[in-house]
Amino acid sequence: MTAESLIISVDAMGGDHAPESIIDGLAVSLRSVDDRVRFLVHGDEARVKPLVEAHSKLVGRVEIRHTDKTVAMDAKPSQAVRGGKGSSMWNMLAAVKAGEANLAVSAGNTGALMAMSKLVLRMVQGVNRPAIAALWPTPEGKCVVLDVGANIEADSSQLVEFAIMGEAYARAIHGMERPSVGLLNIGSEDLKGNDQVRMAAELLKNETLDLNYIGFVEGNDISMGASDVVVTDGFTGNVALKTAEGTARLVSGFVKDALSSSIASKMGALLAMSGLRALKHKMDPRSVNGGVFLGLNGVVLKSHGGTDAQGFATTIQLAAMVGRSTFTEDVAASLVRLTNANSESSTESGAA
Amino acid sequence: MTAESLIISVDAMGGDHAPESIIDGLAVSLRSVDDRVRFLVHGDEARVKPLVEAHSKLVGRVEIRHTDKTVAMDAKPSQAVRGGKGSSMWNMLAAVKAGEANLAVSAGNTGALMAMSKLVLRMVQGVNRPAIAALWPTPEGKCVVLDVGANIEADSSQLVEFAIMGEAYARAIHGMERPSVGLLNIGSEDLKGNDQVRMAAELLKNETLDLNYIGFVEGNDISMGASDVVVTDGFTGNVALKTAEGTARLVSGFVKDALSSSIASKMGALLAMSGLRALKHKMDPRSVNGGVFLGLNGVVLKSHGGTDAQGFATTIQLAAMVGRSTFTEDVAASLVRLTNANSESSTESGAA
Repeated sequence: MTAESLIISVDAMGGDHAPESIIDGLAVSLRSVDDRVRFLVHGDEARVKPLVEAHSKLVGRVEIRHTDKTVAMDAKPSQAVRGGKGSSMWNMLAAVKAGEANLAVSAGNTGALMAMSKLVLRMVQGVNRPAIAALWPTPEGKCVVLDVGANIEADSSQLVEFAIMGEAYARAIHGMERPSVGLLNIGSEDLKGNDQVRMAAELLKNETLDLNYIGFVEGNDISMGASDVVVTDGFTGNVALKTAEGTARLVSGFVKDALSSSIASKMGALLAMSGLRALKHKMDPRSVNGGVFLGLNGVVLKSHGGTDAQGFATTIQLAAMVGRSTFTEDVAASLVRLTNANSESSTESGAA
Repeated sequence: MTAESLIISVDAMGGDHAPESIIDGLAVSLRSVDDRVRFLVHGDEARVKPLVEAHSKLVGRVEIRHTDKTVAMDAKPSQAVRGGKGSSMWNMLAAVKAGEANLAVSAGNTGALMAMSKLVLRMVQGVNRPAIAALWPTPEGKCVVLDVGANIEADSSQLVEFAIMGEAYARAIHGMERPSVGLLNIGSEDLKGNDQVRMAAELLKNETLDLNYIGFVEGNDISMGASDVVVTDGFTGNVALKTAEGTARLVSGFVKDALSSSIASKMGALLAMSGLRALKHKMDPRSVNGGVFLGLNGVVLKSHGGTDAQGFATTIQLAAMVGRSTFTEDVAASLVRLTNANSESSTESGAA
């Protein structure tokens, strides 16, 4: 593998339908990623090799690293970390740590992956907590929402870290110069919300951070694309993300019912087929499949555990985009601003 | 007004389009509420009277109580409470307190309404915090979600109170014997979630409470109707509710785009019109318009501030349903179970 390659380290054994959906997903991804993207695949060679060989185009772009050990989808994070050394998930991360790969992708157990990522890759200096960022469909594209589950709680300074990292991520994937940043709250008035959110709002106004901070956003603003980045704690973000998924599924069901309620409506649906197909694609959760772990020394992408090949290919596509961007440098530069802002505010408060 | 009447106390001046939308909403509601429902309407008589007189069927069912004073839609709760005595909102609540009306309905400032309700009506004995319950569309009907904004935080015992009150509300409006109760969390495993949620889960399993508690539910489960009642704190509940509204609006927009993307799809949409009209009704936020304040000595319903006449009529319809149910008695009986469960657990822990 040459220096100009982008090497993606893949956990072949993570996910409900692994390794089949993972290897098939790599094959599907070849349609959309450039031909310098290569894969370092960790897992049971006896199962993985025949799957790779079934796709002639994959051969030559995949290097298999054998291991017998896998992390169970229902393992507790602490168990996974203790007994996980040498597993496909661990080795996937170790390859990034060792510089053999540019970034890592897994559809495995989220809690285990986060715990192991922290241990193997360590956190970026200046970051106290990593976050998981999701892409969220809006009328104009997609916004970045974080944290969606890495941390159950977040204090104000952690929310500011999330803002910094999320903004850098939005720049990386959307190529935007100054993505707008909103703080999720239950009202747009300054008085509303809990202490963490109100304090974070004050911190985000600090000019040294140089963020395009637009203030509070509410739940209904996310889907409207009111800001390019939406910052919240992992509990609220996870509930919001899953609520949106559930609502989209409910509404899709209602649409289906409406279009099959009579012969006339069925005929109408046939006529409207091309438009409805575009709709289906927009609503397909697989088209936004891929949470990114932010704040680690190395980029880790998490595909949905229940993903099929199409969904995993989407995550690989996202990984290629992030890997080709200046994301890591951007985050590092942004964190310097955070450090400056922090030292400034401690000077102001007389704590020097 | 006779004893068998159901008398609804109405704040004619609350809401962005008051008093017009309020009085017109009362007129619309007459189509669906029985003819013993009457209205005690508080507000500026000079403005309200002509509006009432414009609907011949309203005359004789409405008694106007004049006041010049109104609570501004953007007033802070503390301001509203301090200066609000004698306002249309205050008088609406005082009429319930005095036994002149069975329950109160307002489209006014939510924070002010909650603060004033606590002051005028006081909390039910055994309840520490009131909650706002919303109705949420599911494939089979509607589930009850609470708290959606009365409390920014909730500890485990408050979450249990919400469960008790929400279950009684679900029984009242759905006529269910044993509505199922779920606790909103970010994972279904026992280990996930924050301390409050985990502790509440333990408390809800107490058999003395006699709840049909089914365990944790996640964001996507709400719209699927996984439980009849979903319990959460007001911050998370408010974000979830508004996120669902935003997502439904986004998807509706996508559907509209899909059905107008070509001549064929427009023709298809015409053919499918009847089904799509049913869809529009299902998705219409006005059809679930009405949050109920639970935990007070008196029932208060909150209509959306931006409501039109149709939406306000929905809240009135809901008020009539709640007013005709055994809701208040049910809550009282349930709270006795809570008190028993509490004394039991304090005996067990040796605190007698």
